[in-house]
Amino acid sequence: MNHSTDTPVAVIGLGLMGQALAGAFLKAGHPTTVWNRTTSKADHLVAEGARLAPTVGDALEAGSLTIICVTDYQAVRELLGGTGIELNGTMLINLTSGSSAQAREAARWAEQRGARYLDGAIMAIPRAIGTTEAVILHSGPRSDFEAHRSTLGALGTVTYLGADHGLASLYDVAGLAMMWSVLNAWLQGTALLGTAGVDAATYAPFARQIAAGVAEWLPGYAEQIDSGSFPAEVSALETDARAMAHLIEESEAVGVNAELPKLIKAMADRSIAAGHGGEQYPVLIDEFRTLRDD
Amino acid sequence: MNHSTDTPVAVIGLGLMGQALAGAFLKAGHPTTVWNRTTSKADHLVAEGARLAPTVGDALEAGSLTIICVTDYQAVRELLGGTGIELNGTMLINLTSGSSAQAREAARWAEQRGARYLDGAIMAIPRAIGTTEAVILHSGPRSDFEAHRSTLGALGTVTYLGADHGLASLYDVAGLAMMWSVLNAWLQGTALLGTAGVDAATYAPFARQIAAGVAEWLPGYAEQIDSGSFPAEVSALETDARAMAHLIEESEAVGVNAELPKLIKAMADRSIAAGHGGEQYPVLIDEFRTLRDD
Repeated sequence: MNHSTDTPVAVIGLGLMGQALAGAFLKAGHPTTVWNRTTSKADHLVAEGARLAPTVGDALEAGSLTIICVTDYQAVRELLGGTGIELNGTMLINLTSGSSAQAREAARWAEQRGARYLDGAIMAIPRAIGTTEAVILHSGPRSDFEAHRSTLGALGTVTYLGADHGLASLYDVAGLAMMWSVLNAWLQGTALLGTAGVDAATYAPFARQIAAGVAEWLPGYAEQIDSGSFPAEVSALETDARAMAHLIEESEAVGVNAELPKLIKAMADRSIAAGHGGEQYPVLIDEFRTLRDD
Repeated sequence: MNHSTDTPVAVIGLGLMGQALAGAFLKAGHPTTVWNRTTSKADHLVAEGARLAPTVGDALEAGSLTIICVTDYQAVRELLGGTGIELNGTMLINLTSGSSAQAREAARWAEQRGARYLDGAIMAIPRAIGTTEAVILHSGPRSDFEAHRSTLGALGTVTYLGADHGLASLYDVAGLAMMWSVLNAWLQGTALLGTAGVDAATYAPFARQIAAGVAEWLPGYAEQIDSGSFPAEVSALETDARAMAHLIEESEAVGVNAELPKLIKAMADRSIAAGHGGEQYPVLIDEFRTLRDD
């Protein structure tokens, strides 16, 4: 384990995110080697002290760990699978966006070539990299994460999710689904209140309070899912469905898009039709677990 | 203004919620008169000290304020519009569930008959009534709310929204849209992570953190809506849309329902098609403001 800021690192891929990652390592004092197909993207990093590697293989040799952050997993394979590139003994941390299946496949591919491999997902914009606001998720062998946690900490708030290399991607998209859902529900409410002349700034604190309040229920509701038992301790799904009908009617009455309310009710109605009307909301997990595409 | 707990109150309608409201007034020490069509529902309240009014008119005369909480606005009109019932000089607080249009219409109807009228919405289950957890929203003349705020405080955390009688209903359904959206996004994530063997209890704290974190953005994003200007300070909608595609692909790849992700992307795609791809997420308000039903 190396906690020192003189741990050499390499960053392959200097898009906006890769530049931010390399910049954060430099700022933290790490000897930083960078590589990019278009070398001009390294100019300002070199000015800040980075070393520009002439080849991907050279970058891999320079770092105790190598971050790769490129367009997609196809590009990862092309760059790391090139002629004369030695992966044996390298420590790869792949922060490229992709699916859980791609992450698992890339891990197998890299490990077969003797590399240690962590997959990661960045829940942040480039500008936030290097601050605690940048949450970076990692999955793969715990020992590899622990060995490099301190070095990775230069990039943001680093989190370890588990040995399954697919976890970082799954948590990432799950978190995005939450983000867009909170935003869409807020927009739905903002549009509804807007019809009564209430401006967005007046409504926002109310929406914030509800979202933060409901967030607190989740750990308790999770117990129902894990136990597979959904007693209607707070309210029954069929009671919720009547209020969902109010939401749809109100939206339509004031001329606001009702697609989101209708999807909410459609999923509840299917669960009620399946006999779960007397159970509590988390029983809907069965509707989400089932692939439906219509 | 009367801050004393000897203010007499009346509660019309003794469903589960009405019973809880009357019980909370009794517990706070208010002389409480109740009325219900089926008088047996008053039995346990009478045992706790409530007075059973023989008629709706008698209940209205007994209280300095009268709460009405019945099935729907139709029932409100039938009960309060009965022969020989005098509304002139009464203070009505209607906590019946309904739409903003129904609330405004009921207010006009009651005020024409000389009543003062507040509309309200209860964001709580009956069991929470009488605790600070029960949020009760009020709209109508501010002076009427202020005159009775202390008495109403026996029921929970009381909030005043504005003079427009429709506001309580609108905030109520907007809050419910947020509640179901947070829950559905959490279920989407729970289902996604479940495919990798992650149990709901393990995933829930992550979902909670994201929901609470995004909630904090809302006041700032509201400024963009109120100004009508959506610079991509964090990220552009077309960048978000690529990540939405990942969410759909990941859901489908692991066999999880993709309806919610697809609605999220469909709304973003329409906004991009309308020329807003380079702007920030809140520009989607235009998609929500527009009635769409397909």
